[in-house]
Amino acid sequence: MSRRKICVVITARPSYSRIKTALSAIQAHPALELQLVIAGSALLDRYGNAVDFIKKDGFEIAAKVFMVLEGENPTTMAKTTGIGVMELTNVFYNLNPDAVVTIADRFETIATSIAAAYQNIPLVHIQGGEVTGNIDEKVRHANSKLADIHLVSTEDAKQRVIKLGEEPGKVINTGCPSIDLAKGVLENPELDFDPIQKYGGVGMQIGWKEGYIVVMQHPVTTEYRLAKEQITETLKAVDSIGYPAFWFWPNVDAGSDGTSNGIRTYRELQKPKNIHFFKNMEPLDFLKLLKNSKALVGNSSAGIRECSYLGVPVINIGDRQYRRSRADNVKDVSYSKEDIKEGLKKAISQEHFPSSDLYGNGDSGKKIANILAEIELTYNKTIAY
Amino acid sequence: MSRRKICVVITARPSYSRIKTALSAIQAHPALELQLVIAGSALLDRYGNAVDFIKKDGFEIAAKVFMVLEGENPTTMAKTTGIGVMELTNVFYNLNPDAVVTIADRFETIATSIAAAYQNIPLVHIQGGEVTGNIDEKVRHANSKLADIHLVSTEDAKQRVIKLGEEPGKVINTGCPSIDLAKGVLENPELDFDPIQKYGGVGMQIGWKEGYIVVMQHPVTTEYRLAKEQITETLKAVDSIGYPAFWFWPNVDAGSDGTSNGIRTYRELQKPKNIHFFKNMEPLDFLKLLKNSKALVGNSSAGIRECSYLGVPVINIGDRQYRRSRADNVKDVSYSKEDIKEGLKKAISQEHFPSSDLYGNGDSGKKIANILAEIELTYNKTIAY
Amino acid sequence: MSRRKICVVITARPSYSRIKTALSAIQAHPALELQLVIAGSALLDRYGNAVDFIKKDGFEIAAKVFMVLEGENPTTMAKTTGIGVMELTNVFYNLNPDAVVTIADRFETIATSIAAAYQNIPLVHIQGGEVTGNIDEKVRHANSKLADIHLVSTEDAKQRVIKLGEEPGKVINTGCPSIDLAKGVLENPELDFDPIQKYGGVGMQIGWKEGYIVVMQHPVTTEYRLAKEQITETLKAVDSIGYPAFWFWPNVDAGSDGTSNGIRTYRELQKPKNIHFFKNMEPLDFLKLLKNSKALVGNSSAGIRECSYLGVPVINIGDRQYRRSRADNVKDVSYSKEDIKEGLKKAISQEHFPSSDLYGNGDSGKKIANILAEIELTYNKTIAY
Amino acid sequence: MSRRKICVVITARPSYSRIKTALSAIQAHPALELQLVIAGSALLDRYGNAVDFIKKDGFEIAAKVFMVLEGENPTTMAKTTGIGVMELTNVFYNLNPDAVVTIADRFETIATSIAAAYQNIPLVHIQGGEVTGNIDEKVRHANSKLADIHLVSTEDAKQRVIKLGEEPGKVINTGCPSIDLAKGVLENPELDFDPIQKYGGVGMQIGWKEGYIVVMQHPVTTEYRLAKEQITETLKAVDSIGYPAFWFWPNVDAGSDGTSNGIRTYRELQKPKNIHFFKNMEPLDFLKLLKNSKALVGNSSAGIRECSYLGVPVINIGDRQYRRSRADNVKDVSYSKEDIKEGLKKAISQEHFPSSDLYGNGDSGKKIANILAEIELTYNKTIAY
Repeated sequence: MSRRKICVVITARPSYSRIKTALSAIQAHPALELQLVIAGSALLDRYGNAVDFIKKDGFEIAAKVFMVLEGENPTTMAKTTGIGVMELTNVFYNLNPDAVVTIADRFETIATSIAAAYQNIPLVHIQGGEVTGNIDEKVRHANSKLADIHLVSTEDAKQRVIKLGEEPGKVINTGCPSIDLAKGVLENPELDFDPIQKYGGVGMQIGWKEGYIVVMQHPVTTEYRLAKEQITETLKAVDSIGYPAFWFWPNVDAGSDGTSNGIRTYRELQKPKNIHFFKNMEPLDFLKLLKNSKALVGNSSAGIRECSYLGVPVINIGDRQYRRSRADNVKDVSYSKEDIKEGLKKAISQEHFPSSDLYGNGDSGKKIANILAEIELTYNKTIAY
Repeated sequence: MSRRKICVVITARPSYSRIKTALSAIQAHPALELQLVIAGSALLDRYGNAVDFIKKDGFEIAAKVFMVLEGENPTTMAKTTGIGVMELTNVFYNLNPDAVVTIADRFETIATSIAAAYQNIPLVHIQGGEVTGNIDEKVRHANSKLADIHLVSTEDAKQRVIKLGEEPGKVINTGCPSIDLAKGVLENPELDFDPIQKYGGVGMQIGWKEGYIVVMQHPVTTEYRLAKEQITETLKAVDSIGYPAFWFWPNVDAGSDGTSNGIRTYRELQKPKNIHFFKNMEPLDFLKLLKNSKALVGNSSAGIRECSYLGVPVINIGDRQYRRSRADNVKDVSYSKEDIKEGLKKAISQEHFPSSDLYGNGDSGKKIANILAEIELTYNKTIAY
Repeated sequence: MSRRKICVVITARPSYSRIKTALSAIQAHPALELQLVIAGSALLDRYGNAVDFIKKDGFEIAAKVFMVLEGENPTTMAKTTGIGVMELTNVFYNLNPDAVVTIADRFETIATSIAAAYQNIPLVHIQGGEVTGNIDEKVRHANSKLADIHLVSTEDAKQRVIKLGEEPGKVINTGCPSIDLAKGVLENPELDFDPIQKYGGVGMQIGWKEGYIVVMQHPVTTEYRLAKEQITETLKAVDSIGYPAFWFWPNVDAGSDGTSNGIRTYRELQKPKNIHFFKNMEPLDFLKLLKNSKALVGNSSAGIRECSYLGVPVINIGDRQYRRSRADNVKDVSYSKEDIKEGLKKAISQEHFPSSDLYGNGDSGKKIANILAEIELTYNKTIAY
Repeated sequence: MSRRKICVVITARPSYSRIKTALSAIQAHPALELQLVIAGSALLDRYGNAVDFIKKDGFEIAAKVFMVLEGENPTTMAKTTGIGVMELTNVFYNLNPDAVVTIADRFETIATSIAAAYQNIPLVHIQGGEVTGNIDEKVRHANSKLADIHLVSTEDAKQRVIKLGEEPGKVINTGCPSIDLAKGVLENPELDFDPIQKYGGVGMQIGWKEGYIVVMQHPVTTEYRLAKEQITETLKAVDSIGYPAFWFWPNVDAGSDGTSNGIRTYRELQKPKNIHFFKNMEPLDFLKLLKNSKALVGNSSAGIRECSYLGVPVINIGDRQYRRSRADNVKDVSYSKEDIKEGLKKAISQEHFPSSDLYGNGDSGKKIANILAEIELTYNKTIAY
């Protein structure tokens, strides 16, 4: 019997980290063949090219899709998506997969969904059913309505996808595969590398060994003019408490220039002594860095997901993670310097939280592979009500 | 105070007919400015170029968008959509509308939705919440999830869109504007033109004055290889009963070649004596032709919508209109020649049905314009549950 | 030693016919591997899909590229070319050929040239150095300036490409491979099939066995509004002399609708009794049909090339073949009905001409393959003066 | 009488600087209307967004075209060109100019040429007829073959375009408009601003007032893997002589990442004390900076053009300017550190050269505008031989 060809499309480095254990499980499954497509910003050096990590992790890349139109504004986001539809249609036509997997809710993920659905290829959507705001919110649920099979991360998400009119038998809570990596970290939490030595980065040499925080704040798409202002508040808060901080550059998005400019400007003018900047880090190292930190600051989904399992305190800024299910470790604050500072101070002085299984218990990758091997693959559906 | 700029995108001739009274009402409304974009197959001669009709009806065209990639298969459908995203993004960027209106569920309508939503332009979806099957089903509900305001045609559709998690205050049953035209026909039903003389067409001169039927059967997108077989059954059924028939060519779609080839082949080999073929007809004339016919055969949505109001019997073939709300005038049959024939015989011998207001009562266009003038225009939303 | 991968891109059915013997010779050559790409109108049924012919001829298709944007006007011609650049870039990236072959001067051939040249793939241009007018003229010489190796059809063309500043050692007169097919026909000229029986077509059954003419008239790109008028003159001329005629539909081009409409309108209104219409014909059959005809009428390049070798009289209408080298068989006439009629009358009454080797002597395919196997493949060049 | 609409397309910041006086002259001409289109990297912050300069200079932008596909490799260069064809076709369709102007030979300039030529818009090519190497060489001459009117910069270039078969009356030596700006600088050469104070930049504060050099080295397109190696040699040479240097970042191109990475890496590891880095500078300021420098090092065309007029010594590295006409001020050297160093030492110790009029005498902008106002605009041509 021939193996099912499962084509997974990764359009951004963080999506790779999140899905990695599922990729391994698909690759290892005797009834499945993995077709890995790397597209969009995941290919680009300035957002942290994921290709080297991916090869090092032992995956073969079936196709690379350059689709990011430069400009980083809402107009080029839309056109990038149009280019993505054209390019991914070609890729699926040539690879002829039995199913295509699209991940989460970044704006360009709908290109994967259209290219598959319109060519009558069964579409699997991972991480549907969650709630945020902005364009991601529209894209995520539109992906659900284009998809045939839904592998969600929480019970809450499962109920929401079913309410959207999807057939309950096609909606399965696998937990989030990002938690699989975190499981290994929880079992072996030691920070066994020197971050600055291993990853370089720019900014001050900071004395992180006695305790540090991690910062990761992405621009919020539909408010991109505010991006610079918002990031500056966070910079001021982190600078003023003077506690050692590892800061990660944001992803590509409309507005990343506002955010990036904000960081660059602040750095050059204020020369903060306690902040060291990284472009990116291998996923496992990043989780270890988080586990050993006092807190994560910003609006990264890692704060909501991985940190819930790891028990790391999170100061979650603004509404990017609005209405995502969250465990006790998350403290929501506004964009104001004062709020962030107050949250930070409290986090630094407190212990970590107990591990939560809200986003799964560490075997999501295998669950996903098993479902892909066994579930009936169809591409016609009708709303349930 | 400046008028709201309402950009309506028409991607196929039938969509124009359906929306026409709303266009007139928008144009006439003192608080609105109409920006009419004609795109896709609505521009192409071989699917019945709508441009001449549109100009004759007194509308100015703000932009024309050529986006149909030739090939008529699922792959080119997907790419056409990608091109549409790129092109429509430009158009909206240049026209800078206060709201964009996308209509119904043809595959390329999602290009309108993406181009508007990603550029933070409030998106109005007309005719959401209905149920069919195939790719249209996926596209329609994905459009709903990308849209901010929903102007639906039936009470049933309204409840369904609300169930999809849309804010009830943004979901309004306006009825279907196609019924507005039908209202005029019901008030003045006489067939005041000779169809063959006015529209030419090809095939036999048929004696239609004592009674005739109308045929309109589109290919069903995801089964395009069967298109030829299916149309041939209908051709045989219509040919064998020998009753005068006006037959309309199908729209562009994956498979239209199968359908078109089926028609051409049958015509050349069998030379059916009772069938005359038209490419297209002005909407009002088409409705008069329907009103004066014994029955409509095929799978056109006109059978479900306009004919419910006109009371014309419909022999609805196959599952293209699957789960659309229908009045008593519709008789569903399979693709088999025998079923179609039986349905036809019964329809020819029976009276018309009483008018139903299932799809509105003739003032939808004005309702739509009034809502567009008054409703709050937003582009951020969050699912209701 | 690994074989050189030669990627040949065919964008229109006539280009296939012309290059066919070269394809066979490449395929048969022990040092070469053929990568055949079929693109543009060569894939489309309504211009005579070449795919079936190609498979029947024993070639494997490495990639199909749908790139024709519907609309058939100068704007969609330009955009089709842009889509072609994007799509062919993908194809070459994936096939990774040692050289790419682009043919002649149709508007979309520059897409092949750009996709190859920009990716540093040696580019071979076939049929450069000729002279016509219109956009083809610009495209042909631009192709020469993007190409690294030039395989031309006549001595005249060779001298012209060298004058363009190309290195003389990279400009080789191979003759035109279309003549190779004609060679077989000259050796075995019998019309061994019944055209109507074998190819169907539409229009009158005509008594062609006692003599007939062939008509093939393409629209002239930059004057597409005149296309209908021009074709009507030819229709009138052919109709009025009453001599049996086989008429071939034109290629895709801006204006083909004008030409096609002209033909359809004339046919339906005038019902010419002596004309039978074909969509297309296998190349060898077409040459046999030409060889046994009294004359070819129109503006096809077959009149200039193949007919010079076959000795068939040609009434060449208008300026589409302006300044192409021509043998004695060609009589140039204007678009006027009277001129065409007079030319036709004379041709019907005269004998065929002796065979000319102006465009080669029948071994071009093999010459092309041998050169591709042996010539140094480079992608950097500098103008010679 | 209505004014001729002249659409000038700028795809990179340096092209703007070069053409600026022509834009002013077109804008000021009573018979002309300027339609300025800004496209490609000229819009992007990271290559030095030209939009602010342009607005400050008093020009209105008729359209902005985002067309750069991220990736910076030969494949994305080709696709960027394809996107450019699609987008610019739209722009010209909407602006409906009487002539389109394309500038020089960057890879994406052929998109302008195709979009205009295929839509039958007279195409004016500026700076044709020169000779370099690499893909620019192919693109430049292909542009000439697509263009109808040629406004060249030198007598040598004029003769070359005529040899390409262009009609001599359509080939006019206007000189290069970049010299117009230089004329003002020659008349008023004082460096009336502090570069670091006005433009910021990064790197050491250097003591430039006693003498400095300027460095500007772009990657060479078809050898992009070598870019890092090559730039490093230059960095070493400049670092080792210890003389104050203002270094400008390269343009977007395949390979700019190699070059940029080379610069970044060297800067962080070696911390050169005598180099200050700028992203870009207003054209007039840049020329003043050049005029007051000891020498220009690198491969910028400014060394060949503006510096010939300004008399500034140039150490021209590698073959990027291969076969461009050059005056006595240019010293060609290889990519080796030693050669560059030796050239630098000599240049620092010598006087400036006398001004040369090889590239014009300072009134090119006006000449160009006058020709555009008066020359017959046609879009059909045939090669002269």
